[in-house]
Amino acid sequence: MIFYDCATAPSPRRARMFIAEKGLEIETRQVDLRNDGHRAPEFLALNQHGTVPVLTTDEGLNLTENIAIAGYLEAMHPEPPLMGTTPDEKGAVLMWNAICEFHGGMSIAETLRNASPALKGRALPGAVNYDQIPELAERGAKRLQLFYATLEQRLQDSPWLAGDSFTMADITGYVFCDFARIVKMTPPDENTATQAWLAKIAARPSAQA
Amino acid sequence: MIFYDCATAPSPRRARMFIAEKGLEIETRQVDLRNDGHRAPEFLALNQHGTVPVLTTDEGLNLTENIAIAGYLEAMHPEPPLMGTTPDEKGAVLMWNAICEFHGGMSIAETLRNASPALKGRALPGAVNYDQIPELAERGAKRLQLFYATLEQRLQDSPWLAGDSFTMADITGYVFCDFARIVKMTPPDENTATQAWLAKIAARPSAQA
Repeated sequence: MIFYDCATAPSPRRARMFIAEKGLEIETRQVDLRNDGHRAPEFLALNQHGTVPVLTTDEGLNLTENIAIAGYLEAMHPEPPLMGTTPDEKGAVLMWNAICEFHGGMSIAETLRNASPALKGRALPGAVNYDQIPELAERGAKRLQLFYATLEQRLQDSPWLAGDSFTMADITGYVFCDFARIVKMTPPDENTATQAWLAKIAARPSAQA
Repeated sequence: MIFYDCATAPSPRRARMFIAEKGLEIETRQVDLRNDGHRAPEFLALNQHGTVPVLTTDEGLNLTENIAIAGYLEAMHPEPPLMGTTPDEKGAVLMWNAICEFHGGMSIAETLRNASPALKGRALPGAVNYDQIPELAERGAKRLQLFYATLEQRLQDSPWLAGDSFTMADITGYVFCDFARIVKMTPPDENTATQAWLAKIAARPSAQA
């Protein structure tokens, strides 16, 4: 296996944490996003969309989405389970992971990418340039606050997002909340259940991976 | 189990096709999106985000995302497999499903919801109103054409999106391509592999479910 990573970006951090939680050592190559390494022909041959992470499997398949990398690794290395064991748990993990992606990750990405002068023309990640849309940055910031309310409500009731165990949904939520520093919009201090959950995850070795 | 559906909307159609491919009969309730049935307090109690589909499991868990409903049903009823059996297949299904969602479904939704006069103030599905952003409709239309090129390239090489078997990734891709009629942007006729793939799926009984 080969893991294509970028140490500073949130998306590959999700895969990196997943790999660390599984206790796996995978040969890792850094893709230099700042110098357009993800838009170089060699990398586009692996992933035409020009995004990280990518995991090349032992069989030579290039998996280009976090959920795909997680599903593959969970099937190859079931212990410790990070995607649930019973049908209900499996459903809950996928649901909370999707909620964190759509309401959390997308909101932060829209807020950052449509407003930052450094990302002009880079409103979406990957191989194609798109102009910034300032209204989308505003909408993202609004949606992000609603996501934080959802998270807090859930974590007041449940130790982890998908139930009683730490799962990939917690990785996804944590990585996005932590990355929100870059738009100065981390979860509010008064969201005490969220803050306690973030601190618990930050203390796991995988958060330093 | 109870399946909350809306016969006219693309997202619940994905779950409906998945259920039909599994040969399951599940008690189904229609949610009347046109009359704000998804924003009624009873429905928001099941899904605070106000979106369909929702599947209430035998254990009473409300699963609110297509991927979660699929993962739950696949675990409960493994045959016929719709999410792969080997680790590589599982990864490939999740990857192509995510590509169809992000590049296909999101592009069509953005094109429709940010331009249609009937959807003014409804730029995102669900419980919260968001203003339309005309630039986002334009961007969606551009991205959709790139998605169609990706699809055609893949289907020139592979009978189904994730490999040799029909899977949930094909359901996702098919439902979005078919729904694109509503923005008059279905895949181009010259994309012959895509057209043949669409015709094969349209002929499956699940496409009429």
